[in-house]
Amino acid sequence: MDEFSLIETYFKPLHASRDDVILGIGDDAACLRVLPNHHLVVSSDTLVADVHFLSSWDAYDIAYKAVMVNVSDIAAMAATPCWVTLALTLPKIDTTWLTRFSKGLSEALNHFNIALVGGDTTRGPLSMTLTMFGVAKGDKILRRSGAKSGDKIYVSGALGAAAFAVTLTKASLLPQADIMELMHKLQHPYPRIDLGANLQIYATAGIDISDGLAADLNHICEASQVGACLNLAQIPIHPLVQQYQPHKALDFALHGGDDYELCFTINPTLEAKFLASMAAMKCQCYPIGSIETQLGLRGRKENSEVIDLKTFGYRHF
Amino acid sequence: MDEFSLIETYFKPLHASRDDVILGIGDDAACLRVLPNHHLVVSSDTLVADVHFLSSWDAYDIAYKAVMVNVSDIAAMAATPCWVTLALTLPKIDTTWLTRFSKGLSEALNHFNIALVGGDTTRGPLSMTLTMFGVAKGDKILRRSGAKSGDKIYVSGALGAAAFAVTLTKASLLPQADIMELMHKLQHPYPRIDLGANLQIYATAGIDISDGLAADLNHICEASQVGACLNLAQIPIHPLVQQYQPHKALDFALHGGDDYELCFTINPTLEAKFLASMAAMKCQCYPIGSIETQLGLRGRKENSEVIDLKTFGYRHF
Repeated sequence: MDEFSLIETYFKPLHASRDDVILGIGDDAACLRVLPNHHLVVSSDTLVADVHFLSSWDAYDIAYKAVMVNVSDIAAMAATPCWVTLALTLPKIDTTWLTRFSKGLSEALNHFNIALVGGDTTRGPLSMTLTMFGVAKGDKILRRSGAKSGDKIYVSGALGAAAFAVTLTKASLLPQADIMELMHKLQHPYPRIDLGANLQIYATAGIDISDGLAADLNHICEASQVGACLNLAQIPIHPLVQQYQPHKALDFALHGGDDYELCFTINPTLEAKFLASMAAMKCQCYPIGSIETQLGLRGRKENSEVIDLKTFGYRHF
Repeated sequence: MDEFSLIETYFKPLHASRDDVILGIGDDAACLRVLPNHHLVVSSDTLVADVHFLSSWDAYDIAYKAVMVNVSDIAAMAATPCWVTLALTLPKIDTTWLTRFSKGLSEALNHFNIALVGGDTTRGPLSMTLTMFGVAKGDKILRRSGAKSGDKIYVSGALGAAAFAVTLTKASLLPQADIMELMHKLQHPYPRIDLGANLQIYATAGIDISDGLAADLNHICEASQVGACLNLAQIPIHPLVQQYQPHKALDFALHGGDDYELCFTINPTLEAKFLASMAAMKCQCYPIGSIETQLGLRGRKENSEVIDLKTFGYRHF
């Protein structure tokens, strides 16, 4: 099997039913019709073997996660994902692996009606770069830079499970069902595209939590030239992390990363309307603190003591 | 230095002066304004160390080539390149290397006023994926699939130099100036964006020559369900390949690849107008054969004997 039949077999079928794909896989480039009065939103994420996933993972999970981390970036812009290119580097052609990879890719893309429209296939150490394109109505995108002092800080879901899952080994004494649930959070994150419409209207800034809440909220603060204070007891932590790691649970939530929930800020005068809209959509979200003029990141303990928070998260180098 | 200051130092300055970049490097995704009545053209190419380039190359040349191979794909669609994302995987942070890489990237992008709008930086074996976006007026893109029997086949320039350059070693006895010229063809290909306007009007199909003329013309034939016959003596071969490899020169041109010239087909009734337009633009091009209904690729020797041509080219696996 050569690279062309590889593409034909495993990737060409993943075109989704989108009539805005003028020309998909198989030419020098893809050609896409972009809607008038919509902006194009583009995100690129690389996953490297034994850095972002273990080579031993089921290829289904590797592909699934690769899609979801890119969808999460599009979600963090309050845009809608439409198309993706896949640049896949493989040490060799393994059809069993490719079949699982293609299946994971297909199922993840189908969740959002995203068409695979092109890419590249090369030989080398296992890694992949997905570049995803979404559209946003007019200029209504959710930037990192719009947070103002007084804004309320929210997260879209419980944190810490994926980072805890990374620490699990074969020797873990947890019940199999709990291990499965934690690994599911790590391998199959579900990006919060559902919040897009509400965030476009109500949020002043937003980011997806990939490096850890502290590091990612700090990106918002730096881009917006503000600081933040979190009410530490309000940070939602996944119940299995609370149960098995009660003393480290907050650390997993603040510095663990890989959660792919959204962190965003809401102007307090719009907060009631925002919460009513979220309730109408049956979307939960959690207030965790406020934006302040004082730069830096702080945490308020239950006894009201305020401490400085470290802003480190996942670092590649 | 962490990944964020790396991006800030080496890549954020490469934004070009484009007012259609609503939001560039530094958020979850880039946001781009696409022109009304224009289609978006997207191409993705990965370059892996010691597969597509030698790790020992000047990082300037690596970046330069990475840009040009993507521009070439956009050129092969008769579109105009506008924006690019860079997903860069590095074994470690080496600021000397990054300075050269960033300079090569910058100069290559500036040739075409392309803005670097985002990407990803990860740790792992050296490789990079560029995803490039161009725009094409309306649906006037140049596909591989439009060639018809009777169409004349053209290439945009001399072939074989890059493939010959790959075979050169430190022990090569060629004069230094000739080695430099050949390495320049390998490391600094210049994509034929200049032909876009003419190809949009006159060409029935087109492709860029990355895998070798035979393999790439065969892609046109397969996509168009036709065959082709080349007049072997008409194929333009780089003079240094003719000079140093007279017996293998045609093989380098047919099967060598890495040329990044364009191969395209012209309806014979429009050929005179096409050539007049090319002459007016001072663009050279070379007629090398004709499309035929009989499938497969053939070559006509100077003695009129017709032989079957192999369609192999560069293969990753």
